Amino acid sequence: MSKEITPRSQDYSQWYNDLVIKGSLADYSAVRGCMVIKPYGFTLWENMRDALDRMFKDTGHVNAYFPLFIPKSFLSKEAAHVEGFAKECAVVTHYRLKNDPNGSGVIVDPEAKLEEELIVRPTSETIIWNTYKDWIQSYRDLPILVNQWANVVRWEMRTRLFLRTAEFLWQEGHTAHATQEEAVEEARKMLDVYATFAEEFMAVPVLKGVKSESERFAGAVDTYCIEALMQDGKALQAGTSHFLGQNFAKAFDVQFLNKENQLEYVWATSWGVSTRLVGALVMAHSDDQGLVLPPKIAPLQVVIVPIYKGQEQKDQIDAKVHEITAELKKLGISVKYDDNDNNRPGWKFAEYEMKGVPVRLAIGARDLANNVIEVARRDTKEKQSVSLDGIADFVKNLLDDIQTNMFNRAKTFRDEHITKADNWDEFVKLLDEKGGFIFAHWDGTPETEEAIKEQTKATIRCIPIDGTGVEEGKCILSGQPSKQRVLFAKAY
Amino acid sequence: MSKEITPRSQDYSQWYNDLVIKGSLADYSAVRGCMVIKPYGFTLWENMRDALDRMFKDTGHVNAYFPLFIPKSFLSKEAAHVEGFAKECAVVTHYRLKNDPNGSGVIVDPEAKLEEELIVRPTSETIIWNTYKDWIQSYRDLPILVNQWANVVRWEMRTRLFLRTAEFLWQEGHTAHATQEEAVEEARKMLDVYATFAEEFMAVPVLKGVKSESERFAGAVDTYCIEALMQDGKALQAGTSHFLGQNFAKAFDVQFLNKENQLEYVWATSWGVSTRLVGALVMAHSDDQGLVLPPKIAPLQVVIVPIYKGQEQKDQIDAKVHEITAELKKLGISVKYDDNDNNRPGWKFAEYEMKGVPVRLAIGARDLANNVIEVARRDTKEKQSVSLDGIADFVKNLLDDIQTNMFNRAKTFRDEHITKADNWDEFVKLLDEKGGFIFAHWDGTPETEEAIKEQTKATIRCIPIDGTGVEEGKCILSGQPSKQRVLFAKAY
Repeated sequence: MSKEITPRSQDYSQWYNDLVIKGSLADYSAVRGCMVIKPYGFTLWENMRDALDRMFKDTGHVNAYFPLFIPKSFLSKEAAHVEGFAKECAVVTHYRLKNDPNGSGVIVDPEAKLEEELIVRPTSETIIWNTYKDWIQSYRDLPILVNQWANVVRWEMRTRLFLRTAEFLWQEGHTAHATQEEAVEEARKMLDVYATFAEEFMAVPVLKGVKSESERFAGAVDTYCIEALMQDGKALQAGTSHFLGQNFAKAFDVQFLNKENQLEYVWATSWGVSTRLVGALVMAHSDDQGLVLPPKIAPLQVVIVPIYKGQEQKDQIDAKVHEITAELKKLGISVKYDDNDNNRPGWKFAEYEMKGVPVRLAIGARDLANNVIEVARRDTKEKQSVSLDGIADFVKNLLDDIQTNMFNRAKTFRDEHITKADNWDEFVKLLDEKGGFIFAHWDGTPETEEAIKEQTKATIRCIPIDGTGVEEGKCILSGQPSKQRVLFAKAY
Repeated sequence: MSKEITPRSQDYSQWYNDLVIKGSLADYSAVRGCMVIKPYGFTLWENMRDALDRMFKDTGHVNAYFPLFIPKSFLSKEAAHVEGFAKECAVVTHYRLKNDPNGSGVIVDPEAKLEEELIVRPTSETIIWNTYKDWIQSYRDLPILVNQWANVVRWEMRTRLFLRTAEFLWQEGHTAHATQEEAVEEARKMLDVYATFAEEFMAVPVLKGVKSESERFAGAVDTYCIEALMQDGKALQAGTSHFLGQNFAKAFDVQFLNKENQLEYVWATSWGVSTRLVGALVMAHSDDQGLVLPPKIAPLQVVIVPIYKGQEQKDQIDAKVHEITAELKKLGISVKYDDNDNNRPGWKFAEYEMKGVPVRLAIGARDLANNVIEVARRDTKEKQSVSLDGIADFVKNLLDDIQTNMFNRAKTFRDEHITKADNWDEFVKLLDEKGGFIFAHWDGTPETEEAIKEQTKATIRCIPIDGTGVEEGKCILSGQPSKQRVLFAKAY
């Protein structure tokens, strides 16, 4: 087959692009920075979305939908927020086209200029808090636990499929609470939901922490995050949950009567994950033969390929495969029987390897005679001949095993790539030679953080929130005292 | 309670708005023509979306996602299409804001002007067919059966919640086929899917037909539609399915090698339904007390209200209700136990009546002693005392009965409002006095159609495709010969 993949060792970045495009996840589009998510990639996203959506609903959240457009003036109402988002946004200035009087095509009708420009939402805090003002009067109206699945636009200058696109799909939770304590608890709870999702469904281990001030969401008091490690030793922020304090309530004047009948500003959180997770998934697990997808969210869990000569053999195999397929479906396993005779078995093997289908079954006339089938697992590429008796249960267990194995393998790699550094030379050497997370002391100032970033491109990914790394020490760059190691890495 | 609804008889339009807002389906937003879909309304939409999505997948379709933005030049490539959509679109002209040098706030950065303006998609034929060009080389690549769930924007001047909003949510199917026959079959098949969905899930009977030329989708060869009847006698187009011929394939030069190894243009369909369906649902069934929602898609199917004095009674009722709730959930029925003691039972009754919850159960200490519960159905407002033994099965059957009854009631009303008119006076009188669909002869010319619309505001909703109305006759306006009655109505 012609679908050659650039090896990781040769060009990691090209390897990633090859996987996304040749694995049929996405394509570039005619619009700068925007991608087309192809059916195979979109089914993967649907599976991720559905799993997350169940977790959100199980924790008491409901979905709603707010406008795509945000009046320009709304952005300015929260000072930090406008600094963060005004620089890279799509601005709607007109509402009509007209025929070009000079000839062909259409032009913007200058008479259809909006009084106030509209921004295509880069995130929805402002429009949502402007709405919550009408929804909240008393403590009885709280909490509000709303989530939105939506598209957002940030006019990034350098884009990469899934990882950084001008338009992307995401969910954004926006909650409103009567107390600071409850809002902080919500932000931490949703961080836990994200971590559970990443580890249990994506098989991607994550570190939980809080961002340093300079890496905070524009408008947040605290930004919690989960950080994953890619195979090239770079970190990837896989989800964030923000405690917003009363910043947006104050910006949009959202007050409530508390139980003591006093007016108070509402406490807020917001939290989101996006199609960026698809990029994380690809980079965490795949190999030089193609995608490797975890069974729990794979668009297709099992493919069956017949190997036959002549219609008689084909008919016998068909009959058996239909039995197997029915049994697998009964167990809730997605399965495809690829008996398309335009392509040979070898082509199909490579194709499904490329697409990362977790289990491939192949069956020929001799297998049938011996009552066996060939089972190949995508994660280790191991093949074995397995009895057809009880094959469905065997496959079900194998899928569980693959899910566990993928997580363990990624976790071993990640754990091997968390390294302590106690001075600057060690730090720089580790970054250059090993990569991964470097656990080091920092003096807590934005100046030192910035200096480290400028000299090494490494950023503080997060400050652990589980107490690890709490100890006296000295900042690797400034030598000033520090009470806590933080996690540095180069990152996507 | 303060949530008064304007009666239908007094002001139908205000009645509708009251239901949408006081029934917690949606709110106006700060952005002209855009609405906020509230959690209750969004859950209703989710239920509709999920049912449709299953039907699309059962008929072989897959979901994908294409960019929100369409380059301006794309719109111009299909002549009819640009005429239809250029007049009312949101145009992105810039990609950055900057601080206003004169003081507060932000302004559009004049240096960040796009070379080519981008249109926020009003529909996606152009961007999708530009993509299909890369996906289709041979007949082996066909058919492509793709659907997209997305938001779209049409800058309508007069908007109404759900029925006509600047931004709305919808699905748009875009399929590509090797033959005209297959494409026409697809367009008709999806019309059937829509009709089945409307009747079986929404309990809204629909008429299937084809649009006259002047009501066709901009770029279509034929537009098929389903038309529903609202309680005020006006029709509402509830879904459309378009046979696009080779128009978009030619506009975007999408050709394929057929089995005879000859280059040929690809045949296309597109089809869509939107959040407008929520408006149709509201207007088809509701009454002066509030929403009436069909059980199959209601956000909440059953509510249980306790009636008690003192904690001892409450505890006894709680215990029983938890049993009932568990049994109902086991049957897949959504149920809420509203024991919030901030509100009285009477307030709750009115609230759930307003929200159209199909079944309300109320239980007090005496009921408990008698082993009964009060069951109230929303559609007929009948109440009865029912034994607690087997109550879950009773409720399940009742939900089915309500679904059937709502459909039958709407169908009786609709059937009574299809009236034949054989001359102009009859036609005008029926429109004025009875409303509904008027089945009349038309000479087939756009001029007559336009004249009828100008004089009466009635439009041709569709030409039946099942052979009804095929007979010789004379056009009600021009008196010219006609071979087919068509369905006229005033419409939303």
